[in-house]
Order: sequence, then structure tokens, then C-alpha cells
Amino acid sequence: MKKITIAVDAMGGDHGPPVVVPACLHALKHHSILHLILVGDSEVLQRELQGRAYDTSRLTIQHASQRVEMDESPAHALRSKKDSSMRVAINLVKSGVAEACVSAGNTGALMATARFVLKTLPGIDRPAIVSTFPTQSNKNMRMLDLGANVDSSPEHLFQFAVMGSVLASAVDNIPSPKVCLLNIGHEDIKGNELVKQTAQLLQAVQTVNYAGYIEGDQIYQGDADVIVCDGFVGNVALKASEGIAIFIRDLLKEGYTRNWLTKLAALISMPILKALIKRIDPDRYNGACLIGLRGIVIKSHGGAKTFAFAHAIKEAIIQVEKNIPQRISAEVERLLKK
Amino acid sequence: MKKITIAVDAMGGDHGPPVVVPACLHALKHHSILHLILVGDSEVLQRELQGRAYDTSRLTIQHASQRVEMDESPAHALRSKKDSSMRVAINLVKSGVAEACVSAGNTGALMATARFVLKTLPGIDRPAIVSTFPTQSNKNMRMLDLGANVDSSPEHLFQFAVMGSVLASAVDNIPSPKVCLLNIGHEDIKGNELVKQTAQLLQAVQTVNYAGYIEGDQIYQGDADVIVCDGFVGNVALKASEGIAIFIRDLLKEGYTRNWLTKLAALISMPILKALIKRIDPDRYNGACLIGLRGIVIKSHGGAKTFAFAHAIKEAIIQVEKNIPQRISAEVERLLKK
Repeated sequence: MKKITIAVDAMGGDHGPPVVVPACLHALKHHSILHLILVGDSEVLQRELQGRAYDTSRLTIQHASQRVEMDESPAHALRSKKDSSMRVAINLVKSGVAEACVSAGNTGALMATARFVLKTLPGIDRPAIVSTFPTQSNKNMRMLDLGANVDSSPEHLFQFAVMGSVLASAVDNIPSPKVCLLNIGHEDIKGNELVKQTAQLLQAVQTVNYAGYIEGDQIYQGDADVIVCDGFVGNVALKASEGIAIFIRDLLKEGYTRNWLTKLAALISMPILKALIKRIDPDRYNGACLIGLRGIVIKSHGGAKTFAFAHAIKEAIIQVEKNIPQRISAEVERLLKK
Repeated sequence: MKKITIAVDAMGGDHGPPVVVPACLHALKHHSILHLILVGDSEVLQRELQGRAYDTSRLTIQHASQRVEMDESPAHALRSKKDSSMRVAINLVKSGVAEACVSAGNTGALMATARFVLKTLPGIDRPAIVSTFPTQSNKNMRMLDLGANVDSSPEHLFQFAVMGSVLASAVDNIPSPKVCLLNIGHEDIKGNELVKQTAQLLQAVQTVNYAGYIEGDQIYQGDADVIVCDGFVGNVALKASEGIAIFIRDLLKEGYTRNWLTKLAALISMPILKALIKRIDPDRYNGACLIGLRGIVIKSHGGAKTFAFAHAIKEAIIQVEKNIPQRISAEVERLLKK
């Protein structure tokens, strides 16, 4: 089996090396074909690796003297952080040394840097952020864009639909993924100009299995394989969902810790609550993809802990194995030829 | 105490008279100043009232020969349903016979008809849909627009902010309600042109206590008293939240009904689960306001049952008591004079 090399921005995220390094070792243990390049302050990284057991032939350190701060502007990062762990990791993808990179760093800076260094695929105007969501039907659902673009045109959303469809088809082996547009109603007259015009573009092609509008309350039902929206809307939908889920979790926690009887109820309920948390745990879905680039870039949640970051690395492995950028390219070329 | 007369569209919603009539009787029982005009097919309504005890001096029937269907286009309803229960109920507000109207009917048709019949308040270009949300801090939060407008301008969002602020101040007695703009980040550079320009408009006035951007995951935290956004975004945020809440509810239900041990756990957990449901129960927040009109129009959820519909009537009573349209008018006039 061919080896896979992934560059990891070891300084990114809220926690940096203390989370990223153990996550990398965890990933190496679970994926025998994996080779990792830890990018960051070599002194810090060597210290973090001290005393830990790992195969030195599969884990190397690439020094980078700078790091992009979580609140740094994308423009500033692009201009003044040319030796940041993030930039160097992306450069390794550009030069072909690594087949993908993973970062928990500043999303805006990651998007801007990846776009600048790697460029978008032919026929794709803008990259998008796509992630997997849990659903009631137990199928995976992919939604994009989750915040890379805040002023998409119908053509952009159309391209997102094509990319999402390729991704769902390649990763989940769905022959003809059902693609829906997020809207505020089902009827043709509903929605803004953006969704109406995108619907027309999607109806005109055979290559995307466009299945119409979908409303916010259907996101988690699992009827759609891919849901397409502008990044502003997608980001709000994702975060609003997180917000109410945390609200409910806190109410349950508060209720179950009130007195000895509720604590007993919690004890008996533990398997149910654990199954619930496991089912909708954002850590298990960590690893959003910056799709549409000439290279694979996976964004981990900034606050990701070891398990979650390791999941983002796994996502990168899948994308490499499935040749996602090449497949999108081929699909777009096929569309453009028509 | 002065009596309050409210016109109720008795034919609207998924259930119509079998839900609306008992909800009205419930409301009459709980609000001694309330008088209701049931608008709809008089034969059907009389049949529904048969055998029920109520004060005939406080409940009258106004016949309307048509009803607006739930999937009817607003334009069609406006053009061909001039004697619909919805239209007649709104006419009663226009003529001053009723001080407010409540409908569980088709939102688009209700908005179009209310806007056509009642007109917007001076200085307000467009009405918005505003509703109350539960929050972790136990304070009420109001969000608008939830779907009346899908292509708002910065001026529209600015007006929504003014209206939301007046509403929170009048209903919840908050001297200077904290108004936030929904965005996909906190920093000034984040977001689309719409939010950036609205932020500038809000920063320029003293009358609105503008407190900056807020992200989707903060909607339920309760830091803001009012959250302002375009109707497309607000509608998606609201429905996505509903979607994940239903997902979690169903997972809990599934878990707790699996076997005798989990059923026992459910029994012991019942007070906790009931408290949870009570806290975020949409029925307790039923009754969105079509704000910005020269009259009070309350929209109940289409699927509302008796308790929820009665809550929408209560919302109408509060708005009448607090003189909401007049207060918004006064505030806008004060702003325009500057």
C-alpha cells in the first residue's frame, strides 16, 4: 500500500502542540500507511515529543519560525507570516512533499493562505468549507458553504453543489447524491434571488441530482446527501445548532446533578445520555474540508482536543485516498465541455 | 379596566376551528378584559361552539365565506380571497373594531394581506417577523426578522433594530435593550456588506443600544436582548435550531423506551425531562409578531395546538396593552427628527 504524507500545522488552534502532537501519534498508530510532517517551532515540538514512543521514520519535524494568531486578520497573516507553521504546511502540499495538510488555526487566514498558495481548481471560482453532519436517518450529510464566502453568486453555489456531489459520491459511495438547496420554504416562489437562480442552474444539468429546496428544520433529517447554501447562512445554521445543543446539554446536566435522586437517575440514564452524545458529538465530525483547491486542506475546530484533531487527520487521509481534488476537476471539466 | 377586542382567524392553521375555538375559550377564561371575534365559516364555528360554556357577550362570530389555504401564494390570496377569514380579521383591525388579530394561517399570505390592508408605520419600509427565544440566562431574547424579508437592505435592518429595541423595552421593561447583529464572527472585518453597513448605521445613533456582532452559537446564551438579521438568515437559524432539538428529543425518546431498565430510568428522569421540555417548548413561545404595521398582527405556528394558540392570543393582549405600534411610531419619529 502506498504511503500517505500529511503536513500538520502543529502551532494552530487554541491548544497547539500539547493537543496536536498526541493527536498525531494517535493517528500514526491507527493508520499504518500514514507519514506525518509536524510543522512548527522545532524546539517546542521536540520537547513535546520527548518521552513519547513513536516511529521516527514516519514522523518528521519541519521548522517554522512564526505562527498565525487566532484573531489575526487573513490579510496580515498572508503578508507578514510567510514562515508561519500554517503557511509552511500549505507550501508542503503545493510542492508535492505532502498530499494534504491539517490545521486547527484561524479559519480566515487558512482559507486566504491556501487559496493564495494552492489556487482554486480549474472551473472553480471560490473554495468552500464543507463538513459532515449527523442525521436522524443515520446517513452522513454534507453541507457547504459553512463560512468561506459571505456573498456567493448563483454560479458559486452551483459550483458548491458540484463539489459536494463529487465528495458525497466518492467518500460515501453514493452513486447519485441527492443535492438540495437550503431555503425558507419548499415552493418555487420562496426564497431570495440567489437560491432561485441557483435552482435554475441546477435544474439545467444532468450531472447533479438536484432535489429541490430544503428548510432549516430538515437539515438533520437525512433526506439530503448534500445541502448547499451561502457561507453566511451555512455558518449561522451550524452555529445556531451548536448553540441550542449546548443549551440542552447544560439543562440536562443541571437537572441530573440537582440532588441524590436525580444523580441516581443520571446513573441509570448514563448509557442513553452517552449514546446521545456519541451520536451528535461534534468531535466525531471534526475536520472540515476547504474544498475547491488544487490540494487537500483540512480545517480542524480551533478548540479541538486530541480525539477530535486525530479525526481531522483521518478526514485528510480519506480525501487523499479518494483523490477528491482530481475527481472534482474531472467532473467540472466534464460539465464545461457540454 | 378597558376591554380588549381581538379578531381571530378561526379557519387558519393546520387544525382550524377544532384548535382555535377551544384556545379562544381558554383565553377568555384567563383574561377577563378580553373580547374575541371569531372570524370564519359561521356554521362551522357555531357547531364547534355547541355544548361549550362561554360568555356570549365576550365572544362573537363574524362570518367569512373563504379561507386562505396553507400553500396558497400570497398574491393569489390577496387577489381572490377578499372574504377570507384572514382578510376579514385584518379588516377588523383596520376599521378599529378589533385592536389586534391572531392567525395561524399561511405566513406569506398573512404578511402580504396585513401589509396591504394596514400599511406600514411612517418611517418603516417593511414589516418584520419577530419572536421570543428561550435563553440560558433565563432572560427573553427577541430575534427579527424571521422570514418576512429575504433581501433586506442596511436601512431595513436598522429599522428592525429600532423596532426590536422598542418591543423589548416596552414588553420586558428593559430601559436600554442590548441590540446585536447576527454575524459569522465578532471582528469588524467579518461578515457581508449588509451587516457591515448596518453596523455603521447603528453606531451612528444613540437611541439604539447597539452592542456589536453576535454569532449563531450565542443566540441562546442570553447576552443580547434583541438580535437583528435578514429574514432568510433568521428563518434558517430558527428552523435549524428546531431541527436539532427534535433530533435530540427523538434520540432521548428512543433511548428511554428501549427496555424495562431504560423505561425505569425515564420514570425517574421524568421531572428533569419535563423541566427541559418546558424550558425550550416552542408552544410557550408561540405567537410571532408582524411588527412595523399600523396595527397588531400575531402569527401563530401553523401546527399550534390549543395551549400554543392560546399563548399567541396572550401575546396579542400584551402588545395591545403596551401600545407597541404607537411606541414604535413615536421612536421612529424621534429618530427622523434628528
